[in-house]
Amino acid sequence: MTSKDINLRIVLDWGTTSFRALLVDGAGAIIDRIESEQGIQSVQDGNFIGVLQSAIAPWRQQHGVLPIYAAGMIGSRNGWIEMPYVATPADENTVAAQVRTIRLPDGGTITFIPGLTDRSAYLFADVMRGEETQLVGFGLSRDITAVLPGTHAKWARIENSQITRFQTFVTGEVFGTLSRYSFLAKIAKKPEAPDWTAFLRGVDAVRNDRRAAGLLTHLFAVRTGWLSGNLKPEEMSDYLSGLVVASEFREAKALGWFEIGDTIAVIGDDDLVDVYRRVGESFGLTVILGDPDCAVQGCLAIAKILHHTPGVS
Amino acid sequence: MTSKDINLRIVLDWGTTSFRALLVDGAGAIIDRIESEQGIQSVQDGNFIGVLQSAIAPWRQQHGVLPIYAAGMIGSRNGWIEMPYVATPADENTVAAQVRTIRLPDGGTITFIPGLTDRSAYLFADVMRGEETQLVGFGLSRDITAVLPGTHAKWARIENSQITRFQTFVTGEVFGTLSRYSFLAKIAKKPEAPDWTAFLRGVDAVRNDRRAAGLLTHLFAVRTGWLSGNLKPEEMSDYLSGLVVASEFREAKALGWFEIGDTIAVIGDDDLVDVYRRVGESFGLTVILGDPDCAVQGCLAIAKILHHTPGVS
Repeated sequence: MTSKDINLRIVLDWGTTSFRALLVDGAGAIIDRIESEQGIQSVQDGNFIGVLQSAIAPWRQQHGVLPIYAAGMIGSRNGWIEMPYVATPADENTVAAQVRTIRLPDGGTITFIPGLTDRSAYLFADVMRGEETQLVGFGLSRDITAVLPGTHAKWARIENSQITRFQTFVTGEVFGTLSRYSFLAKIAKKPEAPDWTAFLRGVDAVRNDRRAAGLLTHLFAVRTGWLSGNLKPEEMSDYLSGLVVASEFREAKALGWFEIGDTIAVIGDDDLVDVYRRVGESFGLTVILGDPDCAVQGCLAIAKILHHTPGVS
Repeated sequence: MTSKDINLRIVLDWGTTSFRALLVDGAGAIIDRIESEQGIQSVQDGNFIGVLQSAIAPWRQQHGVLPIYAAGMIGSRNGWIEMPYVATPADENTVAAQVRTIRLPDGGTITFIPGLTDRSAYLFADVMRGEETQLVGFGLSRDITAVLPGTHAKWARIENSQITRFQTFVTGEVFGTLSRYSFLAKIAKKPEAPDWTAFLRGVDAVRNDRRAAGLLTHLFAVRTGWLSGNLKPEEMSDYLSGLVVASEFREAKALGWFEIGDTIAVIGDDDLVDVYRRVGESFGLTVILGDPDCAVQGCLAIAKILHHTPGVS
């Protein structure tokens, strides 16, 4: 069996702290996957090619040389090559027009997908890497606001089959650093399973506040809740999670990203999708979920455009 | 020379991560000080008395037994004894009425000053420990809003010679954890001296934003500023500082703590006082500064009340 038989490709999801390669067929089905903790930041002396080739050696042996597609942080300043950012409004065609393909020593290719920038953003141009491919995979045919949770969550607007604008919220990073290193770290106990009741209490603390309060005031409720006997140590982490994600929705609402009654999409492949769905519903939204493999579908959609465009391959 | 000669006292500033004892005379002048890193959290098996007595042994030897006054976290759940919180509105008399004095084995005494709670706060009763003593030391005779910067900064309203209400902002903790553990930690370089230009750019990024944006959106400017070549690594830390403290002022303004043109007080004994003064002035405020030793003055003011009150000593 060779790659030409069933149009196999490799989709690379190589982030700052993890490596993931997916073997997909021409229909987008995931045949196999290889995962490790060799994120970008662990690669020595810029030897991305060595790490990649040894990681996917089993596929090379079985299927021969396969074309590779890579979106996200591997194509950033700290990654293999620094890819440009395509300016919004953008769609799959404008993204595909700025890919860069490198020929590898074994005769194969790796195609890097560019990021996206929204130059209309305040204060500096906003940026995404990887989420543009998820959005393409989700599909741009329906006008909708899409939320992509993560360390740096993105809210993106899809209109007239384009990604018209987007905004980053540093929610995951704030939650992560506070829960690991703040006053909470000494008191909070991680529960065995998510405590959705505590989580929703955190959401409500922010959502029901009629004052014009922000995150710096709301955060202290995790401590005063504990001091006043209203929060147990094993509830604090999920309460904080609800409080912080609800703060993101509150900011997004104030910035006009949604109104009560709207339908929004939540796109992702991890536990945060359910977290964001719950908060969205608390805020009176109808939430539709993207497939967990939007990134793969996006890579394949871009690959398809490239293969139909003369002069690029 | 004995303590009775010049009315010597010891004021204890014993926090979570540091120990500080001040030897003061009857007029409030600081005669000597002993400092160490033996904060509350480093004390083994609750042996506060042992740590205290060996720390101040030189004074014991020279001056005999001296009365000790302690405000702040040493009187908290994680400290020596858990002192109550006096409810607002409160003044030096209501605070003094709830001190607790313990007799020590050497015949001396340690008097713990209670904290303060604002039960009208949203969502749970807000709390302070130590800042009430600084406010008493600052003086309650003038109606003013006072800001006490710190890990958990406090905004307090002084009216009719009382502390009427207060609010906590988790500003110092957010700045500290983000600058040490977030994406910034890998890129930012600590400058040799504060870069006030970068700092004020961070302040302006928040202050000049006409949108209803909050901290979760503003924080990403530290990254996009760097990516777009508008922020150098050695500017990022001070830019973040300006951005986060300005976010506190923005929230405080939205919550009605001040209006442009108001006079506020900034009370503290470290570099943050100057940081807050600069942000306050950027927000169109007249800023007056409390003496750095407000905590000492507050302890002495409370001691004076106790000594004039029959039955307490």
